[in-house]
Amino acid sequence: MSLFFDRVAIIGIGLLGGSVGLALKARGACGTVVGVGRSRSSIEAGLEVGAIDEAAADLPQAAEGADLVVVCTPVGSVAGIIAEMESSLDENCVVTDVGSTKQSIVVAVEQLRRAASKFVGSHPLAGSEKKGVRHASATLFESATVFLTPTPSAEQGAKDITRRMWEHLGGRTVEVEPAVHDHIVAQTSHLPHVVAAMLVAGLRTLPEDYAGLTGKGFLDTTRIASSDPEMWADICLDNAAEIRHAMARLRNDLDEFDLYLDEGEYEKVLQFFGSMKALRDSLNHEKSDG
Amino acid sequence: MSLFFDRVAIIGIGLLGGSVGLALKARGACGTVVGVGRSRSSIEAGLEVGAIDEAAADLPQAAEGADLVVVCTPVGSVAGIIAEMESSLDENCVVTDVGSTKQSIVVAVEQLRRAASKFVGSHPLAGSEKKGVRHASATLFESATVFLTPTPSAEQGAKDITRRMWEHLGGRTVEVEPAVHDHIVAQTSHLPHVVAAMLVAGLRTLPEDYAGLTGKGFLDTTRIASSDPEMWADICLDNAAEIRHAMARLRNDLDEFDLYLDEGEYEKVLQFFGSMKALRDSLNHEKSDG
Repeated sequence: MSLFFDRVAIIGIGLLGGSVGLALKARGACGTVVGVGRSRSSIEAGLEVGAIDEAAADLPQAAEGADLVVVCTPVGSVAGIIAEMESSLDENCVVTDVGSTKQSIVVAVEQLRRAASKFVGSHPLAGSEKKGVRHASATLFESATVFLTPTPSAEQGAKDITRRMWEHLGGRTVEVEPAVHDHIVAQTSHLPHVVAAMLVAGLRTLPEDYAGLTGKGFLDTTRIASSDPEMWADICLDNAAEIRHAMARLRNDLDEFDLYLDEGEYEKVLQFFGSMKALRDSLNHEKSDG
Repeated sequence: MSLFFDRVAIIGIGLLGGSVGLALKARGACGTVVGVGRSRSSIEAGLEVGAIDEAAADLPQAAEGADLVVVCTPVGSVAGIIAEMESSLDENCVVTDVGSTKQSIVVAVEQLRRAASKFVGSHPLAGSEKKGVRHASATLFESATVFLTPTPSAEQGAKDITRRMWEHLGGRTVEVEPAVHDHIVAQTSHLPHVVAAMLVAGLRTLPEDYAGLTGKGFLDTTRIASSDPEMWADICLDNAAEIRHAMARLRNDLDEFDLYLDEGEYEKVLQFFGSMKALRDSLNHEKSDG
């Protein structure tokens, strides 16, 4: 059975929302894409690049007649948006999102009487430090890991359609419990974002003349510090418990390494770098951002 | 006056040493390049890729007749190598290195009676997580920042030649005190290496199945964790005081951020990410590794 949506509603016309629209259209997987953006300029840009075909006046209007809704807004707003659309959703409409945290969103949507069974949380490990629909791409999800966090109340049909939709866009889906998802991404995405910003903060301790004299290693390591501050403040507050846990682990590692340096433990430092090189070398794939 | 060395001795035939040889030869800036490597295989590879023209039996033999010596070995061995070559150095030979730390090397070479006035420490912010002369490149130093750390005992001629040599290879030289150099790179290179390894260490806290499910953000942020463990253990022990200082600053930042998350301080988190994005965005150049 081929995958085709007559009408897709995309809420939030940014890099991810725009890429969902472009990717579905590039694969002939949808009729009309209707968009809701928070600013006139993002809607106009979305129409211009062809990520959406029309703009809806509000959330209920976007929901009307849609057979797929993809919420691509900051994590703190996802559940509220779905609640606002709920009474206008068609009976067979499937609802998903692209939020970088899953536990709080899933728990909140589970409370909604009608939407709970239609909703399957998603998190594609795709993105960029670049923001906005003008950087959207029809190929953004190709080879990207896409976490899916269905709950017992989600209908099997909704789960199947969400999984097939991402796979159709080139993603590799992985089903996982929402809490496990949030634990994983705290280590692999959220802590790295926090730390990258703190490495940039280190430049402030240098004489001004020298702050720009950084090598490619520094630039790569801190590239994600250029990401959207609002998006990341939202994520950090939402997944605070897991991120604090990950930061505590990092502090322990720093304390141990400090002891190695204090005591001139060359062999222990060497062994640490050697083990971490082996582990990093084993990740010999290249994927989209997360 | 054009720059030409009749005979260049390169000690340490790896990525950097090999690239110095290839770059000098590509620009017609030298006659013969003689190399000393720590293994038969690195010497053979160096001859094969054309980074060196001949192999010397030992350090004194490499020094004989050379008008430029470039020491490209781990930082802990640089001063000892120069001491061993000292009595064989020609009167007009200039000696430099490519070590990632400068204070300990400069202080040790300053003690040498003959070599002190011929030596100008260098640190090109160029490299790669890839190791070995087979990854060497004649263009490695193009647009790279090259720190120079001359001391009062260095002759003006040696300083001029070292600076002109790096500029001839495309580098942008910056003169700086050895101690200031070590402070700068602790923040911009050494701490990022330590932290990248610690982010990789976080993968060990995940169920094995999930450790490989990382996005491009994680891969970029931790790319330098694939660097040569011996080289980095050596650097960390050598620059331990400055690195410990940088780690302490990071721990303070982590503590402050932890408080923000504990107290749900959205505005403070947003402001932190916003400031660091602005600072990172201002480094809008792309250079070689450090």
